[in-house]
Amino acid sequence: MKTTVKLFFVLSALAAQLLLPAQSEVNRAQLALFGQLPEVMESASNPLTEAKTDLGRMLYFDPRLSKNHDVSCNSCHGLDTYGQDNLPFSPGHKGQLGGRSSPPSYNAAGHISQFWDGRAADVEEQAKGPVLNPVEMAMPSEEAVVAVLKSIPGYVDAFGAAFPGDADPVTYNNMAMAIGAFERKLVTPGRFDAYLAGDDSALTAEEQAGLETFLNTGCQTCHMGPYVGGSLYQKLGLVKEWPDKSDLGRYEVTGNEFEKLFFKVPSLRNVAETGPYFHNGSIETLEEAVSVMAEYQLGRELDEATVDSIVTFLKALTGDIPEAYVAKPELPESSASTPKPDPT
Amino acid sequence: MKTTVKLFFVLSALAAQLLLPAQSEVNRAQLALFGQLPEVMESASNPLTEAKTDLGRMLYFDPRLSKNHDVSCNSCHGLDTYGQDNLPFSPGHKGQLGGRSSPPSYNAAGHISQFWDGRAADVEEQAKGPVLNPVEMAMPSEEAVVAVLKSIPGYVDAFGAAFPGDADPVTYNNMAMAIGAFERKLVTPGRFDAYLAGDDSALTAEEQAGLETFLNTGCQTCHMGPYVGGSLYQKLGLVKEWPDKSDLGRYEVTGNEFEKLFFKVPSLRNVAETGPYFHNGSIETLEEAVSVMAEYQLGRELDEATVDSIVTFLKALTGDIPEAYVAKPELPESSASTPKPDPT
Repeated sequence: MKTTVKLFFVLSALAAQLLLPAQSEVNRAQLALFGQLPEVMESASNPLTEAKTDLGRMLYFDPRLSKNHDVSCNSCHGLDTYGQDNLPFSPGHKGQLGGRSSPPSYNAAGHISQFWDGRAADVEEQAKGPVLNPVEMAMPSEEAVVAVLKSIPGYVDAFGAAFPGDADPVTYNNMAMAIGAFERKLVTPGRFDAYLAGDDSALTAEEQAGLETFLNTGCQTCHMGPYVGGSLYQKLGLVKEWPDKSDLGRYEVTGNEFEKLFFKVPSLRNVAETGPYFHNGSIETLEEAVSVMAEYQLGRELDEATVDSIVTFLKALTGDIPEAYVAKPELPESSASTPKPDPT
Repeated sequence: MKTTVKLFFVLSALAAQLLLPAQSEVNRAQLALFGQLPEVMESASNPLTEAKTDLGRMLYFDPRLSKNHDVSCNSCHGLDTYGQDNLPFSPGHKGQLGGRSSPPSYNAAGHISQFWDGRAADVEEQAKGPVLNPVEMAMPSEEAVVAVLKSIPGYVDAFGAAFPGDADPVTYNNMAMAIGAFERKLVTPGRFDAYLAGDDSALTAEEQAGLETFLNTGCQTCHMGPYVGGSLYQKLGLVKEWPDKSDLGRYEVTGNEFEKLFFKVPSLRNVAETGPYFHNGSIETLEEAVSVMAEYQLGRELDEATVDSIVTFLKALTGDIPEAYVAKPELPESSASTPKPDPT
């Protein structure tokens, strides 16, 4: 009896496949707009070595880079949760909340720039920010960070190995270079990349239909390139005025009036796993995010079926975390001279 | 009788103004996306002096920077025709045609980059290209250009005045710096800027309605900022596949697969005066350009009234040429040692 039931389901599934072949309606020529994730997001100014990425990994996980030894890069950009923390705003030193939602660290190194407002050119520059930000890791100065690192013999050795040409390798800048180097391999290729490479079976028929809906709706106007976003700045409320003017985004960096409410278009890689959405984490669900984007950015009111179709595609953008690469490493031991946690 | 007729028309016009006040339907908050033209498109790395812009003006108009002394910057970027030549492709040395339509030099210095494919970062870098391009000005080498300049006593003096700190001021690089400096004041503010500044009467009711149509259609997704374009790269055939793959645009510069068919979004400033349109000058009329853009970039089929409304607005983007600034200067005289024209 049980076997008969099983057989019935297997045959039904086969029949369904025959009746509904996963034929793509998508014009493959249009897919060139995306492009597969690279294996490594390389930088000419920060060539990668294993010594450097190994050091960067330790630093990424090390809470001793924070004033109270309780916040690391990984606290807000958790590598087992797609490089972020699923919170609207992240708690930093003494539980203080940041002003914008922590963007995922996966695939970030390939973006046009870093932070929601693009105020850092690359991940190396980005890495210097949170360590000194009083509401994040709250270290008082670059010198204080270097003092911590120099007090830990394992780090002195690791910096020496990572920056063999440097007379004084333990510097704040080299800390950022190592963290940046580590982040340049944080890529999450997935089924979408197999599909882009030509394997139609890598996405279900529904997901391919969703991709077609995505393309016909015009989402790729901003969400393009290998990261399905991250390649340009765009105005929030492009067609319909955005009501919340409390964060003016890129204007706060450039001072250009016309860049008020401009933000870096976020990548949609792993978007199903990285809510809540938008720079302020104000949107809970992907359905709402899609609907609001269509209304304010494209001037389109989407019906529920259209939204659902796009969301079906977006869920297929979840990739694979490189688990071995991002496994938490053993951190080098403090010495007697290592500054103690400071909860003040 | 004649006076009665005149009075009738004056009264009719007044009545029409009373009946149809030019009330803007445009949400002024959305206009921040544009931004007025600056008076000067400044560069920290090329501070402007009158000596430098005066030299740049002479160089811009001087055909002796071409092999046969018959092509100047102004030949293809005519300053009395809105900085271009109204041709699909421009004739250069021996009448050879370039591969892309000459983009207008007015307002160009404020763009994200130069050329249709962004292969030069700024106008200074741009200015170095055409002089040596064999189908444009066709000079054989930088040294040959410098030899021409050094053979003209008036230029030796002018370079000295423009670059007073330089031991050897007559260089190819300084030639480009001077031309770039001159171009940084090629701005054409017009009625649209008065409107942006708050003067509703600067645009007619029809033009304001056209602006609203422009915004509701989503043209500003790419045509944004003070130049109504020029601020980002976008794929030609974003929603509907572009049939002509003979020019792959930015891909030819970066080699990134996903940038195939990407071009710098052109500025719409003075667009009514700068046809034919697109990188290959393949589109004759503004109406056709608007219609094709809506279809291929936005996936929208616009009816004739909508196209006409947008075109009415686009025509209001024509600004004022700074006639005194761009008047052709007297060029310094050649000497006996100045190389002769070479028609080969």
